Amino acid sequence: MSFIIRKGEKEDMNSVLELIVELAIFEKLPNEVEVTVEQLINDGFSKNSKFNVFVAEENNVIVGAALFYERYSTWKGRIIHLEDLIVTHKKRGSGIGIALYKAVLKYGYDLGCKRITWDVLDWNTPAKDFYKSTGATVLDDWQVVHMKEDALKNFIENS
Amino acid sequence: MSFIIRKGEKEDMNSVLELIVELAIFEKLPNEVEVTVEQLINDGFSKNSKFNVFVAEENNVIVGAALFYERYSTWKGRIIHLEDLIVTHKKRGSGIGIALYKAVLKYGYDLGCKRITWDVLDWNTPAKDFYKSTGATVLDDWQVVHMKEDALKNFIENS
Repeated sequence: MSFIIRKGEKEDMNSVLELIVELAIFEKLPNEVEVTVEQLINDGFSKNSKFNVFVAEENNVIVGAALFYERYSTWKGRIIHLEDLIVTHKKRGSGIGIALYKAVLKYGYDLGCKRITWDVLDWNTPAKDFYKSTGATVLDDWQVVHMKEDALKNFIENS
Repeated sequence: MSFIIRKGEKEDMNSVLELIVELAIFEKLPNEVEVTVEQLINDGFSKNSKFNVFVAEENNVIVGAALFYERYSTWKGRIIHLEDLIVTHKKRGSGIGIALYKAVLKYGYDLGCKRITWDVLDWNTPAKDFYKSTGATVLDDWQVVHMKEDALKNFIENS
């Protein structure tokens, strides 16, 4: 292994945004990315920061990132949610993703969290199989609901 | 309407926990509730609070609650997640749930959030139909993954 996993710093946010955009292009939704480097710096590194991020660095280049934050379960209390785990395309299969995954789980474990959550695309069988092999449970009976910006505006202004 | 919607206070957490347990009993999983009143007070009302809560009050009794918090989307930035919306069984159908729902959406709207999210049981067709009628989108291609406490411990200590 020639890479290291470390806590992300402000200076890494440009590279992290590039990874976010790379994933969005892969998912054919690049225009959905509205976050800016300035926002990531402000939201992740101010006093009341909104997320944590681990990065994978190889030869001074950021090749992967895992962004996560606390959520609150009414059953379990403080839990950790892994929002995104991204490894740049040409570096996949070299153990970077697993190392980032372990780093986030270890973080939650050290914090005493009773649950760590994330979402997975239902057709992504290799990912689901990997998660299950580590002991995670893919829930079959829950669906995710989004109220998007336009719909929210419409609902609030017209109901 | 004889109820009011207001911000929850420390003194309401006993009633909020009763609602949480009522819902867990309905879902046949009462033993899953590990949160205590002390935890709710500490986590919701300390300087770096982990959630917000609106309550519905009728004749000085808490008959409903909506617990929510901020999450962070790598595409949209700061968003709001509605974790639980509970109305006590005998008060369902009296508009309390919709009032709590609107209060949370309004909160996110006023904050300038580009997305508000929550989860729904996939067999809960009435709920899904209601959400859709307000403009929300039920995602068909995402699944929720949980790494539970025991599995996390096992993974960290043995991998």
